[in-house]
Formats: sequence, C-alpha cells, structure tokens
Amino acid sequence: MEKNYKAVIAYDGTRFFGWERQPDRETIQGKLECVLSELAGGPVEVIGAGRTDAGVHAKAMTANFHLDTTLTPEGVRDYCNRYLPDAIAVREIREASDRFHARYKAVGKTYRYTCFDGAVKPVFDRRYVTMLDFHPDLEQMRAAAAVLQGEHDFGSFCGNPRIKKSTVRVVDSIEIVRRKDYIYFTFHGTGFLQNMVRILVGTLLEVGRGRLAAEQMSNILEVRDRKCAGPTAPPEGLCLIKVDY
Amino acid sequence: MEKNYKAVIAYDGTRFFGWERQPDRETIQGKLECVLSELAGGPVEVIGAGRTDAGVHAKAMTANFHLDTTLTPEGVRDYCNRYLPDAIAVREIREASDRFHARYKAVGKTYRYTCFDGAVKPVFDRRYVTMLDFHPDLEQMRAAAAVLQGEHDFGSFCGNPRIKKSTVRVVDSIEIVRRKDYIYFTFHGTGFLQNMVRILVGTLLEVGRGRLAAEQMSNILEVRDRKCAGPTAPPEGLCLIKVDY
Repeated sequence: MEKNYKAVIAYDGTRFFGWERQPDRETIQGKLECVLSELAGGPVEVIGAGRTDAGVHAKAMTANFHLDTTLTPEGVRDYCNRYLPDAIAVREIREASDRFHARYKAVGKTYRYTCFDGAVKPVFDRRYVTMLDFHPDLEQMRAAAAVLQGEHDFGSFCGNPRIKKSTVRVVDSIEIVRRKDYIYFTFHGTGFLQNMVRILVGTLLEVGRGRLAAEQMSNILEVRDRKCAGPTAPPEGLCLIKVDY
Repeated sequence: MEKNYKAVIAYDGTRFFGWERQPDRETIQGKLECVLSELAGGPVEVIGAGRTDAGVHAKAMTANFHLDTTLTPEGVRDYCNRYLPDAIAVREIREASDRFHARYKAVGKTYRYTCFDGAVKPVFDRRYVTMLDFHPDLEQMRAAAAVLQGEHDFGSFCGNPRIKKSTVRVVDSIEIVRRKDYIYFTFHGTGFLQNMVRILVGTLLEVGRGRLAAEQMSNILEVRDRKCAGPTAPPEGLCLIKVDY
C-alpha cells in the first residue's frame, strides 16, 4: 500500500544546478527521484518545501513522496544514502499523514548566510562561505535589517521579473552576528521569493560597506524595483537551515 | 637579500598526492614551490615539518623557505594565496632566523583523527571524517591507548618495511573523546613514523570493535612486526593540527 513519507535532506549544493529537477542537469530533486524511482520500480515525485538555487546548500530541506515499499522508513533512508551521491544525505525519513505536503504545509523557513572577512580563505569550509574583501559595519547592517523585518512587499528583492503573484512576504527576524572572521545572517520568515535571501544579503552588504544607508531601506521597499536593491549575493554562502510545519 | 621565512599552511588534502613533491603529480609542496618560484624568478625549496600522506589534511603544517623579495611577509602570503589552489592556504608568514629549519627544529606534533559512527554521513565534512559501520568501545580503546603512550619502539606501527633508522618514538599522549557521532583521536608526540598515526588508529579501532584486546598492545609493540598491528586507517580522517618548535 502506498504511504506518504516525510524526509529531511542535507546537501552540499556546490556542484548541483539547484533543487529543482531539470532535464540533463544534476539537481537534488532529480537525484532523489532517480534513486526512489529505482526503489519503487516506477516514477516517484519528490515534493520539496521550496526550491534552492544552483550552488545553495541545505542542512534540513524537507520533502515528501509517496511510495509503496516493504522497507521500514530507516530502510528507505539507508537505501537512498547508499545510492545518492556523497554530497546529498537523507537524514531522516518518517511516515506522514496522507495530507502532509512539504510545500503547502510549510509555515516557516530559516536560512543562514555565511560571510568571511578574514585575510585568508578558510580551507575546510571554503565551499560554504562567501569571501568579503572589506569589513562590513555590523551596526549599520543591523539598522537596515530592522527596517526590512516584518510584512512588506518585497518586489525589489525578487529575482523573477515576470512574477505574477503577490510579492508580499513576512520576514519575522533578521539576525546578524559575528564570530571571529565569520559573519552569519540568519533569516526567519513564512516564505521567501526567488533569490530573496541573496538579494537581502547583497543589499545589507552594500549598507555594511557604506554604499547604501540604512535609511534608504524603506524607499527601496516602496519602489518595488529590483534595480534599486543591492546585487544578488553569491550562492555558496547560503544554506537552508530548517523548515517549520 | 635572501631571507628565511616560516610559513603556516592549511590544506584539504583530498585531491592531492600528499605533501612531498613528485614529478607529474599534484602535491602540496609541489604547488607551494611552483608559486614561490614564480615569485622569486628562480627555484625555491620549501621545507616542511614532515610529510603527510596522500589524502591527509593539515590545519597548520609548518614550513620554511629562503626568498629574496621586496614584498612584506603579508605580501608574500597574499601572493601565494592568490595563485595557490583553493584547497591550500598560507595562513601566516613570518621572517625567521637563518637557523630556523621546519623539519630539524620541530620538537613535537599534534595529529587529530576523526571518525563518525552515526547512521547518516555528514554532508558538510564528509571529506574530513572516516565513516565507521560499528560503534567502538571507547573505554577499551582508551585502555589500549594508555599502553601505547610513552617511549617505545613503534616498528609494528611503521608503514615503511625498509626503514633503516631507529623506529623508537615518544608519544606523549593519546586522547580519545566522543562528541555526538564524532570520535576524535588526538596524538601528541615528538615525531611519528610513516603511516604511524593511521596504523595506531587502525589498531585502536580493532580494539574498539573487540577484535583485539587492550592487553595485546604490549605484545604488538614487542614483536616489532607490522603484520601484528591493525590495518592502516584511511587518510581522510587524519589532520596535522600543530607543529611545536
């Protein structure tokens, strides 16, 4: 009998073309569907909580899929991990109710963006940080982040110019902390637009280097024009940390 | 005027054939000498504190080299980091006395070996841990480590069967700790034979899984026969942490 499974997945997105399945390109969803379809002996669709861009990582992407198998959930997990590339790991699989849907039932997400502004690139996590060639002013960035928090039309922070649906989103919190040469931006919100976290970080870094002022944030939100926000920060510093249900 | 420089180097050894220069193979020493020779406009020899095997990492390998340059030590460091592969970083360069020699003046070394015995391979440091398919008994391993500590003839723990020189070494301490699914073996000693740390770990893991008893360690030391010790643990879990002068 077919059951619905909830899975928590970690991946190093460096060499992948993002989460979403694409013909002839290696993606996380594509790899998972390939392995699960092999197990099922027929096509399996994996529904992710969201899509991550090419090069973006996840500690805990959540997904669901329907499968008819005699294996236990741990058995499915181990099967996946045996055949998935090393850069993708299914951390946990549980049976879920039939109504569980990884995208529609998600009520919040946490993303972390990591920058490094030391003189020497850290060798062991070089794939998971964005190198800065300046030392951003954290107080100014925090002032700007305070304006960006809350419910706003984030049209200026959307990477998809042809978006038809509402660009209103709620960002509950933006936390910026430094630990030695690492600067961590942690975003929690109910949902994020395409590239939104990376554009927020790109904009905050412009504030941090003095090219934009914290006071300009309200105006950037108001105009709803992508060109007025900062650049899209590179993907390697971004990691999906958690999905809430 | 030629000066002697002391450098501290970190590297992810995954894709390299070890520290030591080899014709037609990518090695850490080879890469460093290539970049420094370019800077010097003539051959530069880089002397490392020791040699690490293919696939072994370092947080702080120490080396020295002679160079005639108008650059400051920071300038030499930045030059190196600009041209070295991402997996190698010169963390620090200082002028040293003419008598400083990274190998002869080293008085101690710290190595750490990291194992992981959780069910799911950790994606983000998968290159820096050795996966175990069993849960080793830490108490038994510590009892065995206590016997191996001290000054001994480590002939049974040497990967070079044709070694002519003395195989007596002093291992001051072997510490074994668990943090969640990670098990860290930390070795400090005045010097180590070829593959010695990996063979010590391979032997301790045999004790940890019950195939060897802690009581057999004295005998293994006594016979000075490589075949009596455990297997050579894989390189990916090993990291040179520090060199003392």
